[in-house]
Amino acid sequence: MQRIKTIAQLRDLLRPQRERQLGLVPTMGSLHEGHLSLIRQAAAECEQVVVSVFVNPLQFGPDEDLDRYPRNLERDCQLAEEAGADLVFAPGVEEMYPGEGKTTVRVAGLTDRLCGASRPGHFDGVATVVSKLFHIVEPDRAYFGQKDAQQAAVIQQMVRDLNLPVQIITCPTVREENGLALSSRNVYLTPEEKRQATTLYQTLREATREREAGRLCQAEEAVQFIRERLEQTAGLSIDYVEVLSYPGLEPLERLDDSPSIAAVAVYLGSTRLIDNVIWPKRREEDVPHPDEIQNPPSYRN
Amino acid sequence: MQRIKTIAQLRDLLRPQRERQLGLVPTMGSLHEGHLSLIRQAAAECEQVVVSVFVNPLQFGPDEDLDRYPRNLERDCQLAEEAGADLVFAPGVEEMYPGEGKTTVRVAGLTDRLCGASRPGHFDGVATVVSKLFHIVEPDRAYFGQKDAQQAAVIQQMVRDLNLPVQIITCPTVREENGLALSSRNVYLTPEEKRQATTLYQTLREATREREAGRLCQAEEAVQFIRERLEQTAGLSIDYVEVLSYPGLEPLERLDDSPSIAAVAVYLGSTRLIDNVIWPKRREEDVPHPDEIQNPPSYRN
Repeated sequence: MQRIKTIAQLRDLLRPQRERQLGLVPTMGSLHEGHLSLIRQAAAECEQVVVSVFVNPLQFGPDEDLDRYPRNLERDCQLAEEAGADLVFAPGVEEMYPGEGKTTVRVAGLTDRLCGASRPGHFDGVATVVSKLFHIVEPDRAYFGQKDAQQAAVIQQMVRDLNLPVQIITCPTVREENGLALSSRNVYLTPEEKRQATTLYQTLREATREREAGRLCQAEEAVQFIRERLEQTAGLSIDYVEVLSYPGLEPLERLDDSPSIAAVAVYLGSTRLIDNVIWPKRREEDVPHPDEIQNPPSYRN
Repeated sequence: MQRIKTIAQLRDLLRPQRERQLGLVPTMGSLHEGHLSLIRQAAAECEQVVVSVFVNPLQFGPDEDLDRYPRNLERDCQLAEEAGADLVFAPGVEEMYPGEGKTTVRVAGLTDRLCGASRPGHFDGVATVVSKLFHIVEPDRAYFGQKDAQQAAVIQQMVRDLNLPVQIITCPTVREENGLALSSRNVYLTPEEKRQATTLYQTLREATREREAGRLCQAEEAVQFIRERLEQTAGLSIDYVEVLSYPGLEPLERLDDSPSIAAVAVYLGSTRLIDNVIWPKRREEDVPHPDEIQNPPSYRN
């Protein structure tokens, strides 16, 4: 009989080897280029790719857009196949939640701020359905977009805490040419709102430039910088602007001390949009000389 | 590309077939005949048996017996091997909970009553560590004792709600000849307390006889019957006596309407002991004729 003390040793002994690496791209459907970039990356890295399409009622609040959330399974299947999916898993609500569900997966701390504060229960719904999908599909790798940075951080933390045998891959946000982050909810926007929405990323880029030039050193300064610019955009109302450590999502004083996220959520009409940028921790030698600050280098995305 | 709508179909397609069925017996060590009966059953049903030995701090309250809980890994390994285990997984606390864990698995409703009411947070700790063990070991079957009936119901519900790919097997309580349910905590008992502790199962048996004879029809009557008898035992103080539906653990009026559990928790000195019996739902034809009630059949365990 063997005695084992570490999880890694136990896995080496017991885990059945899959012949083909399996990638999962969990989605709520209404696929856009952001999703397709995840599917393409999964197809490049895994021999078999499952795309799940499930509009998860658990992650919508009572006054949110569950009923009008865009759905188009035919089109989704065609796009997923073209991007390299081998299988689309599109269960009904009864299949995913038969009878009375009593179990919730909750990731504390990380879910209190940002979208978690504006959407109580949202991340419990996300963590619970993603853990279900992981148990159903048992993927080797799962792919998430950086646009939903808090979601990615929550899932990463859940995987670590619960020892889920899956590797989480976070892929860059895909944007329109004008910088607007792709989102299934963009279909709600009028042409005018769509134009206004470009302010989000423009402002985050400006803040990034200021930060790189050494002119934004405190998280609170960065919040003020972003907030002031967003407030100047007609028709846009701010849900939150926060600058926190990343991926820990803890309050932060000096930006130099930790990788950080500048995250915003706004309403345009009744449509809620989010965006974010991640800023690296800065070492002493990265801080520009005062001369450089006078002539900051141009920003490259 | 395939389109799949049900979980069963998806599993048929994707689940890697293990060459050998894997059974897990999760324990907190200090193995007794109850644990060994689980290991023997696992060994009879599975080609490979893992016994985990981990005293889980998350399921102990601040004033409970985490520090003095009996530990003896050498003896546990020997007993586990003799009972048919292939592998003992005995991680340290740091291996199971490195850094700051933020994720909790919570089974609502089922955990509010019985031991859940007396031990707040206990079943969150149980559900969380068992989900971790399931992710680490990835067993086909996992074995739990009926003595911890609420624990078994909570885990069964978690498995169903989160689609964990494991079958839960609940095995009968193992008792000493005098009826005392085996428990690692029995080592705390003085000889006098051990004698007093036999009242628990004696009383549950008496209640079962009364129930079978048709003299206990309401849950509340059964609670009173058990409570009155336990109160007559010197040195024993009642934590709870409850009769609920099983496995739903909902309040119940008429015992005939649903399978039910009569569950008790008591203190003997500072030692907390639990026990329970499960009563089947009764159909019309099971109800004894009044003549029979006068001469109830003798009880067979």
